[in-house]
Amino acid sequence: MASSKTIALDAMGGDYGPEVVVPGAALSLERHPALQFIFFGVQERIAAALEAHPSLRARSRIVHTDLVIAMDEKPSQALRRGKGTSMWLALDAVKQGQAHASVSAGNTGALMAIAKLLLRPIPGIERPAIAALWPTVRSECIVLDVGANIGATSSQLADFSLMGAAMARAVFHVERPSVGLLNVGTEEVKGNEDVRAAHALLKSAADLPLEYKGFVEGDQIGQGAVDVVVVEGFAGNIALKTAEGTARQIGAYLKGAMTSSLVTKLGALLARGGFTVLKEKMDPRRVNGGTFLGLNGIAVKSHGGTDAYGFASAVDLAYEMADSDLISRLSADVEVFHHKLEGAGLSQNPLSAGSAHGKA
Amino acid sequence: MASSKTIALDAMGGDYGPEVVVPGAALSLERHPALQFIFFGVQERIAAALEAHPSLRARSRIVHTDLVIAMDEKPSQALRRGKGTSMWLALDAVKQGQAHASVSAGNTGALMAIAKLLLRPIPGIERPAIAALWPTVRSECIVLDVGANIGATSSQLADFSLMGAAMARAVFHVERPSVGLLNVGTEEVKGNEDVRAAHALLKSAADLPLEYKGFVEGDQIGQGAVDVVVVEGFAGNIALKTAEGTARQIGAYLKGAMTSSLVTKLGALLARGGFTVLKEKMDPRRVNGGTFLGLNGIAVKSHGGTDAYGFASAVDLAYEMADSDLISRLSADVEVFHHKLEGAGLSQNPLSAGSAHGKA
Repeated sequence: MASSKTIALDAMGGDYGPEVVVPGAALSLERHPALQFIFFGVQERIAAALEAHPSLRARSRIVHTDLVIAMDEKPSQALRRGKGTSMWLALDAVKQGQAHASVSAGNTGALMAIAKLLLRPIPGIERPAIAALWPTVRSECIVLDVGANIGATSSQLADFSLMGAAMARAVFHVERPSVGLLNVGTEEVKGNEDVRAAHALLKSAADLPLEYKGFVEGDQIGQGAVDVVVVEGFAGNIALKTAEGTARQIGAYLKGAMTSSLVTKLGALLARGGFTVLKEKMDPRRVNGGTFLGLNGIAVKSHGGTDAYGFASAVDLAYEMADSDLISRLSADVEVFHHKLEGAGLSQNPLSAGSAHGKA
Repeated sequence: MASSKTIALDAMGGDYGPEVVVPGAALSLERHPALQFIFFGVQERIAAALEAHPSLRARSRIVHTDLVIAMDEKPSQALRRGKGTSMWLALDAVKQGQAHASVSAGNTGALMAIAKLLLRPIPGIERPAIAALWPTVRSECIVLDVGANIGATSSQLADFSLMGAAMARAVFHVERPSVGLLNVGTEEVKGNEDVRAAHALLKSAADLPLEYKGFVEGDQIGQGAVDVVVVEGFAGNIALKTAEGTARQIGAYLKGAMTSSLVTKLGALLARGGFTVLKEKMDPRRVNGGTFLGLNGIAVKSHGGTDAYGFASAVDLAYEMADSDLISRLSADVEVFHHKLEGAGLSQNPLSAGSAHGKA
């Protein structure tokens, strides 16, 4: 499609603000020349950063605000006093239809709370989720929820499947993405009630815009067994961070091993092309960007500590999601699915069932 | 202490049976010459495997049985018809006081069910857990529960802390092991009710035989932030398998990267000493062995697909746990802790609180 899309950027979010956000946007613009940007934040700092990027400057406008949400601010506090901050304004631009998507490297909890308030969940979706791109030996997959909520009912897990599939269509360009439920085993008796009931729901629902593959285990994520891995947010967040930690741990092992003698050092020097390939494969900036799925608008979250290269990946993601008509397709999918469930008497709306789950 | 300990071995468990179990025991005997063994299984196959290991044969006896529990047998079925099988007899030898510990590479669910039935939980412990040794950049840590149960109440999580600490004392020889609760963040508001209540319990309990360090996140496990990581079994199992999968994934990346050109191949050849160090570091056989903790007896589970080297690690673990007087110390710890909780009115016995959790 490659149509012109406008991205609203929280220029003050993350550890570095405009000094990373602006060059990040410039990098993404090189890849998607039809992009346009609205930067929200401190006018002088953004303008100064834009000096070095004239072609970006030509496709950008700045909306000034001095107000910023701190990285350690509580979500409740951010909701109370967040109005007028760079994060709030960027999300509001999506709500007002001035931008097709927003990106922020700011405080995750605050971003989640404000995005939910301004963009509202898609009708039928009780809980938005945070989806992460996860590198696999084949390419990438999507894992959700990685921490928006703690716990999920069976119907919420089924909704996550639809949401993840919609994102996979946008990002991987697969019409019927494969979906697996993360569990402690692949037999039907495994897991808790919610997971087993979600399995039954997904298995029985014909004509879903996805290919349901059943249960997958933790070691199958990185093998690329499915395009979308669905899990409630407590285990999902732990899985994501455990994988990140394991990658760092092995990196440390590797460094230690390659500097253990003069000969290994020499060999490592010769093989440095290979290590560069490995480093690129393992580069967390390459797949930077979590997304809040299930809202009436696209809100991408970049890592707070990333650089311009990483921020550009998050902007790319926002662009692809905006360009794929994700939200209207997802809304339609959800409506059809919930309608079918109701028809089949399978609806498990937890609001009516009174199932209690703690929130993150 | 290095006293003589007798280990009961399920010679038929795992993918290979006596052909791995016997040479595995022989390897462990080299490291712990005071060990003695009872092999349970098919007499001829065990005797044939012992031919090659005369010093092991001199310290072993064989108890014949033709009955074996299949790798895919359901726990309930194993309980009904498991009597007289090699796995059952090995656990019964621990119960009868003929052996100080048992090791099996067989069906995990069956082993758990039979071990629970025969060895019974330690008074005060509602739920035994499976503890895994987890390699870290410093050395190793213990993670539990990695899948004995789904979900855990706050008092069960507190018990897991005591159980993990007892194992850490046995295996790491630290008098007051550090313990962390796995969570989705380190702030007190994070996680579900059970995790937060367990945090409060552990923080308020003075004089525990452990150093409680608060919440830890997934990426801190491999950093070796604490000696013992406590988590309910669903998230724990997913974390363990995700870490294993990530390690394999990076291994595949590395192999691909090092064979990407002639020069990298040459470099990798020169650096092969370094790769050997790395391979050893990442060798899953080095820390093979999960343990059921919380029972009146030691039952170690080896990976089913491991070789003699890996099985020997599991036997080493059984030896160290038997040699450290783990069970009587743990029983005393649990009694003191529960007594204190009752005194403080903090006891949260879920049987009385009626908290419902599904089982694995």
